[in-house]
Amino acid sequence: MAMKGVLRPGHAQIRVLDMDESVKFYTNVMGLIETGRDGQGRVYFKTRQERDHNSVILRQADRAGIDFFAFKVATKVDMDEFERRLKAHGVKTERIPAGELLETGERVRFMLPTGHAVELYAEKKDVGNGMGYTDPEVDVVDGPGIRPTRMDHALLYGGDIDGAREIFEKCLDFHLVERVKLEDGKTDLAVWLTCSAKAHDIAMVRHAEDGKLHHVSFQMPSWESVLRAADIMSINRVSIDIGPTRHGITQGTTIYFFDPSGNRLETFCGGYDHYPDMHPVTWTWDEVGRGIFYHDRKLNDAFLSVVT
Amino acid sequence: MAMKGVLRPGHAQIRVLDMDESVKFYTNVMGLIETGRDGQGRVYFKTRQERDHNSVILRQADRAGIDFFAFKVATKVDMDEFERRLKAHGVKTERIPAGELLETGERVRFMLPTGHAVELYAEKKDVGNGMGYTDPEVDVVDGPGIRPTRMDHALLYGGDIDGAREIFEKCLDFHLVERVKLEDGKTDLAVWLTCSAKAHDIAMVRHAEDGKLHHVSFQMPSWESVLRAADIMSINRVSIDIGPTRHGITQGTTIYFFDPSGNRLETFCGGYDHYPDMHPVTWTWDEVGRGIFYHDRKLNDAFLSVVT
Amino acid sequence: MAMKGVLRPGHAQIRVLDMDESVKFYTNVMGLIETGRDGQGRVYFKTRQERDHNSVILRQADRAGIDFFAFKVATKVDMDEFERRLKAHGVKTERIPAGELLETGERVRFMLPTGHAVELYAEKKDVGNGMGYTDPEVDVVDGPGIRPTRMDHALLYGGDIDGAREIFEKCLDFHLVERVKLEDGKTDLAVWLTCSAKAHDIAMVRHAEDGKLHHVSFQMPSWESVLRAADIMSINRVSIDIGPTRHGITQGTTIYFFDPSGNRLETFCGGYDHYPDMHPVTWTWDEVGRGIFYHDRKLNDAFLSVVT
Amino acid sequence: MAMKGVLRPGHAQIRVLDMDESVKFYTNVMGLIETGRDGQGRVYFKTRQERDHNSVILRQADRAGIDFFAFKVATKVDMDEFERRLKAHGVKTERIPAGELLETGERVRFMLPTGHAVELYAEKKDVGNGMGYTDPEVDVVDGPGIRPTRMDHALLYGGDIDGAREIFEKCLDFHLVERVKLEDGKTDLAVWLTCSAKAHDIAMVRHAEDGKLHHVSFQMPSWESVLRAADIMSINRVSIDIGPTRHGITQGTTIYFFDPSGNRLETFCGGYDHYPDMHPVTWTWDEVGRGIFYHDRKLNDAFLSVVT
Repeated sequence: MAMKGVLRPGHAQIRVLDMDESVKFYTNVMGLIETGRDGQGRVYFKTRQERDHNSVILRQADRAGIDFFAFKVATKVDMDEFERRLKAHGVKTERIPAGELLETGERVRFMLPTGHAVELYAEKKDVGNGMGYTDPEVDVVDGPGIRPTRMDHALLYGGDIDGAREIFEKCLDFHLVERVKLEDGKTDLAVWLTCSAKAHDIAMVRHAEDGKLHHVSFQMPSWESVLRAADIMSINRVSIDIGPTRHGITQGTTIYFFDPSGNRLETFCGGYDHYPDMHPVTWTWDEVGRGIFYHDRKLNDAFLSVVT
Repeated sequence: MAMKGVLRPGHAQIRVLDMDESVKFYTNVMGLIETGRDGQGRVYFKTRQERDHNSVILRQADRAGIDFFAFKVATKVDMDEFERRLKAHGVKTERIPAGELLETGERVRFMLPTGHAVELYAEKKDVGNGMGYTDPEVDVVDGPGIRPTRMDHALLYGGDIDGAREIFEKCLDFHLVERVKLEDGKTDLAVWLTCSAKAHDIAMVRHAEDGKLHHVSFQMPSWESVLRAADIMSINRVSIDIGPTRHGITQGTTIYFFDPSGNRLETFCGGYDHYPDMHPVTWTWDEVGRGIFYHDRKLNDAFLSVVT
Repeated sequence: MAMKGVLRPGHAQIRVLDMDESVKFYTNVMGLIETGRDGQGRVYFKTRQERDHNSVILRQADRAGIDFFAFKVATKVDMDEFERRLKAHGVKTERIPAGELLETGERVRFMLPTGHAVELYAEKKDVGNGMGYTDPEVDVVDGPGIRPTRMDHALLYGGDIDGAREIFEKCLDFHLVERVKLEDGKTDLAVWLTCSAKAHDIAMVRHAEDGKLHHVSFQMPSWESVLRAADIMSINRVSIDIGPTRHGITQGTTIYFFDPSGNRLETFCGGYDHYPDMHPVTWTWDEVGRGIFYHDRKLNDAFLSVVT
Repeated sequence: MAMKGVLRPGHAQIRVLDMDESVKFYTNVMGLIETGRDGQGRVYFKTRQERDHNSVILRQADRAGIDFFAFKVATKVDMDEFERRLKAHGVKTERIPAGELLETGERVRFMLPTGHAVELYAEKKDVGNGMGYTDPEVDVVDGPGIRPTRMDHALLYGGDIDGAREIFEKCLDFHLVERVKLEDGKTDLAVWLTCSAKAHDIAMVRHAEDGKLHHVSFQMPSWESVLRAADIMSINRVSIDIGPTRHGITQGTTIYFFDPSGNRLETFCGGYDHYPDMHPVTWTWDEVGRGIFYHDRKLNDAFLSVVT
């Protein structure tokens, strides 16, 4: 089919320092729906509009950050083929049995050279978006929380982003959408990659320490809903990093903010569609500030340094 | 790659009764950019944000309607392979040489059993969106016209929509996103199909006469810009069929209106993303009114009968 | 003070055929807050953001329509003075004692020559908008209903709208903002009047029968919230008269719809500010369709004929 | 009449360092319409939607800042009466003859104890908003610049804001809408005052130096148009102070930015309506950060220190 192989980001397992406080935050402030808890004490969430059982999994731990980030692939045959290509590329893979995550099939897990665990899976139970597949209503997003449309992408920080990009491009058929060059005009400071027609499904920034999370991002349906999200954050005294504003890169509107454990999250809207016949957009070092935050037109220190 | 094969609608050749009046309309009211004229007197347009040389081609003729609707495919190898599959399915194909349309490579043309000419092509010159690929600005849409983001999809009317759907699904890897059933609960009145993650790249309605155009659709960036489009239409006394309103099907917001030759156009915004792991949404005959126009909740006669 | 005398529409008493069904509608669909019930069985509502105790009062009756429409005046001295001017104009007035409506002070009631009871009052208990007067939060409108900002204005139908306008202008200091002329170019078909800087606080249409209600209108904060209102109406199978669309007159965006008793309501947004140094806008008979519904540009029959 | 006396801010005379550069900025970036130049070399502007001849006057000078800020009053009788009350209050007034400003009648000028010149006038030529008073179209805001709806209010910095407020309230019938208290809980750091039903027509902040301008503000029609304004600023490399964001005070959305001479301007949208039966909102010192910038929830230094 035209849209095949790796479909989209599927789930992110995020480490939190206090589960009760975090469940309250992801439920009441983020407006996610809790869909289950497992024997390890992990708590599962989805947005109201997502059909699959879970997209965010919280695990209590001593330090914040991300355990793994997963992509759903179209079929189990695709998953086998991607594993084969990963191995051929010299990437060690591991199979996680079906059911290890609630309502989720077998996963193939591998490490990026940036120290991030990435997973592929083909099956997660369609528990529905509450609208059904017959004569559905339009869903009117209301309720007390931010209620994003979906878990959309993540930005990861680590050393060898060239190696990571190569894996995404060569083994998983991702496309480079945008890149930021360092002062030398050659080295990538950051890359934005897509497995679909979105402006980004994953992004990576070069960083001294491996395995770091910059943010997990959630899609909002409109710029007005981004404002509403900022208002809800302030009412709840959520720490806002920056926003509402716009990125030059992807052109999406954005708010960066922190969960109670210090994990940065994003609510964003927009961003153009990318098709594989487009060239990647390149940002030079001189214009990187405007690329990251289009209105401030300067990098804030937190963007490059605060990660979990 | 993850996004491969048929990428997106690429161009529509529309018949107009008076070229001068039509060029004014598509330029000043629609806000499209004229990109060229050819020896046959055809006039070429693109939206400001489209990168390829043309997406709308006007041809003067005695009666309105659509000459052909084309999809861009990722590579020439894909084009060959699709032609092979079409032939294997018993569909006669024709090669149109590169350059027959300005700045456009070779095309494979075939007829749907509904009497519509459909084309595939792999090459059209990237003339840019005015922003460039290096350190781009955000494009601020202004100017006197509607200025849609892109030519997005078409809705075609004809008899054998089952046969047409089979070709899109089996030969071109399209997915069925939504369908409307007739009173018998079995026959499809209409189908919406995607070649990407959009809610629709092409749609078809069962109709007594073959080869008919219901509308060519243009994407708008926001519900506010849909209102602005309606205002611009009224200022210019454009005939509005219906809207602004919302479709239940795809959930996009919409205005239907007519060009000076009576061709129906649409400016729409939104619509959910479709991935191939989703089931198609089915509308029963009793709810078709709400499916087509979510707020009126009844079919207007014009929707089923007025075509060009 | 600069803003003095008649301040704004304060309350409307609406007749409903079935109180239970109506309370559900005004609570769950309109998203109003029930603030009390009185000994006569009347039920009181306010919007969440209104500070005064009530703006909509429902009374069960055999036929739908409006009992009275009231304006809040700045002070009791103003109320006395307006009553004096009404009497000097030959208008009979009546005093309704404080407390006859819950949490509402004494009212001066009089009849317009169009057969509508209008009231003035200076006191209604400020029960707050839930945000308080110290260090307030921004109110994030959520919840299942439409949740307008305020009860905003009414459109009344009756015979002698010239006499009614004279009373509003001469006795109550209203200003004429817009008017529609009949075919003779002289007679007013309709007038829009303001007591503030709003485009309308009351409007009247010439009609064969006196004492009729065309609609009571509620303000929405944005065009996006107007769309959300239309979606909520459809989810609840509310009968929609027209919309979302825009009025040429006042330029506000609008939906007309019906409560379960057949009373027409409006959710609208926008409309320009009117100051007394502006001239009134005049609509000629030829353009009245565009004036009423800017996109359809034709009067629908229901607008002129369906009233309660 | 209900809306009487002081109607609204009418014009601001702003000092600029380089007239040519400033005219380009106010024309191309702000999107104002130049309406005239006078013998002193002053350049006059209005927004497209304003009807009166001018609302912004630029004067070339050695230092930036504001020469005077003027309010339009309903009638010359009102102007005489306000002058009488100012004099009775001990405020010295001066008459500026009609025509001293283009198309503007006689003005009464006086000094606030904060060192700001304020003017009242009753007459300025209605040159129209291009739509006319008969069968008007809805104005579709387009074109290259920000194109605000109107010059809306100003924020002035000076010492004796208590004395200034007393003049606005006692002599000119303004109302106090919001106030910020200093740490002592008694002294006002800032006050927001209205002469209409707007959340503010003028605001003042206590400051060591008299006669200073914090910003002149322009109204935008929607939050989406505020984003578009920010994009236009970045495309033109305009220095943005802060925003897009929201004020807790007035609840309006906002961008602060600087003209080429360093005068701070604001594009804002929204803010609730204030009626004289409402109490003023009070912000305590502890919450002032959230009051000024609702999302950042901290005062930035520039807000209190950078003025012209």
